[in-house]
Amino acid sequence: MLEKIDLKKDLDKENYKAIMEEADAKLGRLQRACREKGIPIIILFDGYGAAGRGTAISRFIEPLDPRGFTVYSTAETEEDKYYPFMYKFWKMTPAKGRINVLDGSWYRILLEDKFAGKVSEKLQQSAPDEIVEFERVLTDDHVLIIKFFLAISRKEQKKRFKKLEGNKTTAWRVSKEDWKQNEKFDEYTNIIEEALRKTDTENAPWNIIEAEDKEFAAAKIATTVVDRMEEALADYERRQALPKVSAEESACIKNDPLRASALAGVDLNKSLTREEYKVRLKELQKELAKLHGELYMRRIPVILAFEGWDAGGKGGAIKRLTQALDPRGYEVHPTASPNDIEKAHNHLWRFWTSIPKAGHVEIFDRTWYGRVMVERLEGFCSEDEWRRAYKEMNSMEKNWADYGAVVLKFWMQIDKDEQERRFTERQNTPDKQWKITDEDWRNRAKWDQYEVAVDEMLVKTSTTYAPWIIVEANDKLYARIKVLETVVETLKERLK
Amino acid sequence: MLEKIDLKKDLDKENYKAIMEEADAKLGRLQRACREKGIPIIILFDGYGAAGRGTAISRFIEPLDPRGFTVYSTAETEEDKYYPFMYKFWKMTPAKGRINVLDGSWYRILLEDKFAGKVSEKLQQSAPDEIVEFERVLTDDHVLIIKFFLAISRKEQKKRFKKLEGNKTTAWRVSKEDWKQNEKFDEYTNIIEEALRKTDTENAPWNIIEAEDKEFAAAKIATTVVDRMEEALADYERRQALPKVSAEESACIKNDPLRASALAGVDLNKSLTREEYKVRLKELQKELAKLHGELYMRRIPVILAFEGWDAGGKGGAIKRLTQALDPRGYEVHPTASPNDIEKAHNHLWRFWTSIPKAGHVEIFDRTWYGRVMVERLEGFCSEDEWRRAYKEMNSMEKNWADYGAVVLKFWMQIDKDEQERRFTERQNTPDKQWKITDEDWRNRAKWDQYEVAVDEMLVKTSTTYAPWIIVEANDKLYARIKVLETVVETLKERLK
Repeated sequence: MLEKIDLKKDLDKENYKAIMEEADAKLGRLQRACREKGIPIIILFDGYGAAGRGTAISRFIEPLDPRGFTVYSTAETEEDKYYPFMYKFWKMTPAKGRINVLDGSWYRILLEDKFAGKVSEKLQQSAPDEIVEFERVLTDDHVLIIKFFLAISRKEQKKRFKKLEGNKTTAWRVSKEDWKQNEKFDEYTNIIEEALRKTDTENAPWNIIEAEDKEFAAAKIATTVVDRMEEALADYERRQALPKVSAEESACIKNDPLRASALAGVDLNKSLTREEYKVRLKELQKELAKLHGELYMRRIPVILAFEGWDAGGKGGAIKRLTQALDPRGYEVHPTASPNDIEKAHNHLWRFWTSIPKAGHVEIFDRTWYGRVMVERLEGFCSEDEWRRAYKEMNSMEKNWADYGAVVLKFWMQIDKDEQERRFTERQNTPDKQWKITDEDWRNRAKWDQYEVAVDEMLVKTSTTYAPWIIVEANDKLYARIKVLETVVETLKERLK
Repeated sequence: MLEKIDLKKDLDKENYKAIMEEADAKLGRLQRACREKGIPIIILFDGYGAAGRGTAISRFIEPLDPRGFTVYSTAETEEDKYYPFMYKFWKMTPAKGRINVLDGSWYRILLEDKFAGKVSEKLQQSAPDEIVEFERVLTDDHVLIIKFFLAISRKEQKKRFKKLEGNKTTAWRVSKEDWKQNEKFDEYTNIIEEALRKTDTENAPWNIIEAEDKEFAAAKIATTVVDRMEEALADYERRQALPKVSAEESACIKNDPLRASALAGVDLNKSLTREEYKVRLKELQKELAKLHGELYMRRIPVILAFEGWDAGGKGGAIKRLTQALDPRGYEVHPTASPNDIEKAHNHLWRFWTSIPKAGHVEIFDRTWYGRVMVERLEGFCSEDEWRRAYKEMNSMEKNWADYGAVVLKFWMQIDKDEQERRFTERQNTPDKQWKITDEDWRNRAKWDQYEVAVDEMLVKTSTTYAPWIIVEANDKLYARIKVLETVVETLKERLK
């Protein structure tokens, strides 16, 4: 793949000047057009050591309006170690209309880190798929991803390292790792080829740049970006021309009596007496408090997700958990409709960027599953979007679990009568009136449709690494104890 | 101050239960009321080692809806060292309607850090004023700040340390520093008393909590918060009842011929030939590139702020700077109207949270000075707000400069005729039409009012540590070179 390429290719001055003048003029215009259409763009630069990424980035951004792009350095920091590998890169995904240029990228794990022997066998196996999936989630959401790999020969690299070392102000830039790369150049090239081959997808293809001649590299980079941006704009126009679909149509709710159901067999008569409740609550909270300390010491992150019918008792169950937790070690994340920054990103962005640091607990009060419930039913997203969301969310949770997170998801199940009783009680109790809104009544009117969507969600997204726990919640006391018990049992098992 | 207080105070069971029941019920209601009215609340807990902050926080938050507050741990991290001290705490200021509970606080610098000998003499001198000013900026903006200091006696502290050490799972919580605190208890008490005395202001008073009896402490904390929240709500209602003032009235623009002017004497005829420009540009960019590397090595942060008339040439000047900078070491921050998260915070929050990491350059294209220009003129803020903004912004910049940042502010000055020429050119050039909007023409109609506001701003906020540089910008070439020259000269001076 790499060895057959003539890395020395160059351009004569005249030709270079003409190409760059045209490309630069186009890039300025394309940047404005993409900003206007809200197209987010990631351009990443990987390559051999001393292949000239810094220079290439500097030259590339010259014609761009600096208010519309950001260049990110992707070197690992101390903080990164407390999060799953992709957390850092999720944070770097661009908002609509912005260009994020990355010096290095998530490919570090398949390239430099792997070469340096820093990556476990297990992670080496799973990382290529995770990366392909990550890019797929973004490009499905119409993020334009442009990937460059800057290639030079072993001889050229050696020459450049020596030149850098020969100058007092640049000598620090050549490390032992760099020299190791040059010494074992073929071995490293094999690693690169494998990484590129596994991640060269139709939606996010690799562009290998012959980088021995800087001007040739600059010209190829600029014209590649021009082509890809033009394609993205054409694609945008095509999408605009598609016929509009009604919310009802895109929601595809059919009450098929043969559909798989997770809720059908749930016994909502389960209950506890106030006395049983008090005793168990005290025991479990005491245990949980102790486990929380151990989690912190052993740096295990915990993600607890709560969904359920309105008035299903999420708030009460969360409170019984947090009462037992050290407030410095947990956070409750209330999920409302996305704000304008959140809307400008992928639907998973606001959850990825809210996951707990290792050793902490994050409790989500409503979650990423809004996409396959309210967003599906109200037509806030397209059929394509909610259909692919199951897989996206499974992958996201797998990513967290692989990093070592405990992921539990609770569905608070009540029946229609119980909900009405609670709604009415809320309306008649002055201190609870704030809990009930017109929207709650509107959602209630769609109970049957929601039930179809919820069942589909529970069936498709309950996994061994991030299971759904259906909580029989007609009796609040029983429900709270079941949640606490599940959390305590799961943590005990993990801490064994 | 501390020694005269009876730290052993307690409550009988009955009394405690009655007080807490009432306070907890009130806190739930007050939290909802403050959320509804958009009142942001900071509650911070400082105190002697082992005074029971963790327990106090846990008990305090019990009656609160966990979706409406966040508890922050404030221990210093590696990352903190790359930013001015207050950066971390600005990030922790609450959005409207939220409660942020801080375990420890910015007082660390006057308490633990000072006792440990970690704070320079200079910082010890300036920190109390900086803190008072920080709190003043927030409370002026109607943030409720509640400060608790938990006090116990030397004897009680010793007892608690021993108890912690006696238990295998808690022994790690007692450090050498803690024991030092107990050994030199009087010395530390003096430090505390000095800190409390200097920062006990009317707008953000200290509450000393007798903390030997946990129940007494819990009751005093809860009732104090109830009182302060009730006051804040009453204050909110008072403000709502104030008569509305028109934008024109609150802007207070008077074209007094005797007013101080920074713009009156500016010679806009200054210019350069294309040849002079090319030569100087090349020289200066080369120098700047070199200086950028040194800045990085020496970890000096640089803040470059650009303001000026529409079409004054900010973009062009910024571009000539960024062309010379390593893209991994700078960022251009475009300042548009605040988004909804930004609107929910103090007007300085979005700038504080965007300052560069040590060794990096942040270029602000439009700035925090919007408050005393467009916001003043269009009535987007009250007279009080823009009037106190000069001082707030001077303090903010002083804070940055004291940390070691280079802060330069450029005002791009053109005359009215030149602006019209440029607007017209933009309208007639297809590739430049995007640069001109109706709003530009509307702003232009208010040129004379803007001039008064700009002059007042330049006079009031040009300081030795963050000077305004008025750039004669009728000739674009001259202007770009002046900006580059100023940056290069200032950096050279700093790096000497």
